[in-house]
Amino acid sequence: MNALCIIGGRVLRPDCSVENADVVIDTDTGRIHDIGEDIAADYDAAETLDADGCLVMPGLVNAHTHVAMTLLRGYADDKPLDSWLREDIWPAEAELEPEDVRAGTELGLIEMIRSGTTTFADMYFEVPEIAAAVEASGMRARLGHGIVTVAKDDAEAATDIEEGLRVAREFDGAADGRIHTAFMPHSLTTVDEKFLRESVATARENEIPLHFHANETTDEVDPIVEERDQRPLAYADELGMVSEEDFLAHGVHVDAAEIELLAERGTGVIHCPASNMKLASGIAPVQQMLDAGVTVGIGTDGAASNNDLDMFDELRDAAMLGKLGADDASAVPAEAAITAATAGSADAIGLPGGRIEEGGVADIAVVDLDAPHLAPAHDVVSHLAYAVRGSDVRHTICDGQILMRDREVLTLDEEEVVETACERAMALVERAE
Amino acid sequence: MNALCIIGGRVLRPDCSVENADVVIDTDTGRIHDIGEDIAADYDAAETLDADGCLVMPGLVNAHTHVAMTLLRGYADDKPLDSWLREDIWPAEAELEPEDVRAGTELGLIEMIRSGTTTFADMYFEVPEIAAAVEASGMRARLGHGIVTVAKDDAEAATDIEEGLRVAREFDGAADGRIHTAFMPHSLTTVDEKFLRESVATARENEIPLHFHANETTDEVDPIVEERDQRPLAYADELGMVSEEDFLAHGVHVDAAEIELLAERGTGVIHCPASNMKLASGIAPVQQMLDAGVTVGIGTDGAASNNDLDMFDELRDAAMLGKLGADDASAVPAEAAITAATAGSADAIGLPGGRIEEGGVADIAVVDLDAPHLAPAHDVVSHLAYAVRGSDVRHTICDGQILMRDREVLTLDEEEVVETACERAMALVERAE
Repeated sequence: MNALCIIGGRVLRPDCSVENADVVIDTDTGRIHDIGEDIAADYDAAETLDADGCLVMPGLVNAHTHVAMTLLRGYADDKPLDSWLREDIWPAEAELEPEDVRAGTELGLIEMIRSGTTTFADMYFEVPEIAAAVEASGMRARLGHGIVTVAKDDAEAATDIEEGLRVAREFDGAADGRIHTAFMPHSLTTVDEKFLRESVATARENEIPLHFHANETTDEVDPIVEERDQRPLAYADELGMVSEEDFLAHGVHVDAAEIELLAERGTGVIHCPASNMKLASGIAPVQQMLDAGVTVGIGTDGAASNNDLDMFDELRDAAMLGKLGADDASAVPAEAAITAATAGSADAIGLPGGRIEEGGVADIAVVDLDAPHLAPAHDVVSHLAYAVRGSDVRHTICDGQILMRDREVLTLDEEEVVETACERAMALVERAE
Repeated sequence: MNALCIIGGRVLRPDCSVENADVVIDTDTGRIHDIGEDIAADYDAAETLDADGCLVMPGLVNAHTHVAMTLLRGYADDKPLDSWLREDIWPAEAELEPEDVRAGTELGLIEMIRSGTTTFADMYFEVPEIAAAVEASGMRARLGHGIVTVAKDDAEAATDIEEGLRVAREFDGAADGRIHTAFMPHSLTTVDEKFLRESVATARENEIPLHFHANETTDEVDPIVEERDQRPLAYADELGMVSEEDFLAHGVHVDAAEIELLAERGTGVIHCPASNMKLASGIAPVQQMLDAGVTVGIGTDGAASNNDLDMFDELRDAAMLGKLGADDASAVPAEAAITAATAGSADAIGLPGGRIEEGGVADIAVVDLDAPHLAPAHDVVSHLAYAVRGSDVRHTICDGQILMRDREVLTLDEEEVVETACERAMALVERAE
């Protein structure tokens, strides 16, 4: 066995307890071989990482994003969802070239690695470019092509759907199994019923999971209720879109029956608190969903509505906003927010990880606790939820490979990626304006 | 003139425009002498700061905090305001020794300097210790002794009030004028009417401004309305507590008439979005207050209800939560949040600063924009509101003195301060438990 040892840190276990322990990784399998106090000396480690003064925690799982939207970070702010999409985002996205998506994705992957995220779920275009970037980065991901059929003719819509099914088939299991896929209709209102009905059936036959936006704003919920006299998730269920392997983004405006349905089916809900605040979409009933047994993950959404991909910001927002939404300061406590951003997210998107446990995948973030804003250390779990930020992450490991060591990203060339992304972003918005 | 030149950066002006300019500071007066493109070469600078790739912005103004509560960071989370105060915070605070307050304050000052804050308003105990720490740190502050009379006998209450008046008189103008003071009754429900009435009159006679918590939770508003049949700020006004030089913290549950009163009187409101979320207090109507012409500042509140003192987190929260509260994604846009955290805060607490302008005080934060999470630079003002965090601050200057250079705090010994604060925090909670 080739061993990578993380030495001298404190380890966050799946129950949110913390113990002094070394972590030994088998880099041949990419899995955690052993966890225990002072055990590193028993192994002839090929590589070691110093975790003195650090917390060793599961790599964060960003369960809903559009990574390449880093290119549009700060391009259009302070506008509601519908006009923001129609006036700014979609016109810019119409100009996207495959190389833009590659550049924006690489920028986002670097940002995520630097803030301790090892795994993500992405809905965007030019999936082959995204898959190539993920493969190079060493991260783990579930990828899909976002499908919109409104304002398209039947032939264009069919082409879009075919692309969604094609990439879902082609890239599942890519990058030595680090990449999986899903079929990703954008939402219940942006894909016409006839296309949804057909394509979902095809996805189901091919055992491809589904990911889509649902119940994000009242503007999206109300027309469905008016037109069909049924709640959006009842409609989705009728279409066969609410299964255990599926996961939906947002779930802001869900009623008790929809929560019950999600819990019963084991369908994951990805909470995106920053995006929901920034677009004034509303507050998702996170504590209510947790109480009902729904698998809740956390995502940043795209950088254009956030405006960063730092999952520590996001889990803090989830803990904060969860209290406000429940009108209860004990709602969504620190442990719940951390669990949602790790194991909850991983389970929701159906990828391994989110837990530091023997035999589990070695997807790990090592957080430096030795900083004025993290002193004193009454409770490091509280710090993770309320005071740590992405810049406190010292090392990031995915699938047993070191992606960042001492804040230097090893798998991508940071300087070159930032430069290329900036150039492409400027050219993109020039074309769009 | 002894000049300090900040060279090669982009400068954020009071109207939120950005221009390429050097900033020349007269370190004898602590004021900005000149701002202009490539002007640094015209001065024989005693000192220079490199701002290449950086944004030169006003130092942030944390307009409501209890700095020494850093000692209780993460000590008690996920509880509502009342039980959090009564069961955890107040018992711990009852054990505070003057040296604890000094240690916690120094820790907080380092955290603020490291995240670009130059100025703050503080309500706490052992003000002489706080003033000494502020003097050593080089920061600017308005300080006061927090007074609570409920559950005290008349003699104890009178002693507390006397201390509040004494420190307000003694420390006004201290630290070469960087320290000013206010009289600080904790709130309208935690200080009995008879004491409020007398002490406010004395403060007014002595031209001492007032700072207090108001309309933070419905639990605090409702009893006043029930008992007096008047809104809390009408009651405060009757007591003479709503003047131009006064400022109140929170203002979450204010009605239209109270907003009108605040605007008319020029009384500042300090918005504390993170604390309001974490304690499930509610959402302050920030856009409504801005529309009415209220001077709105931003504060972190204490580190025990936040859990950090990073004003970039706070202004992001203000922009985010302002949209949710107004049910309008165009509410509290980036510019409004940045202005509130700088000029708005400074004006509200009656201290100079919050603007980069010739003749103004040289209170400045230099923010490094050269980072993956700040690429591309479509709009640096958007970045300030939505993507910059405290760790991006490179240099901090207050009153013309460099407090942090290249992320090294120069005025306090960071290692020693962190160590002392941690030791004292652990001993404090041991005594309290």
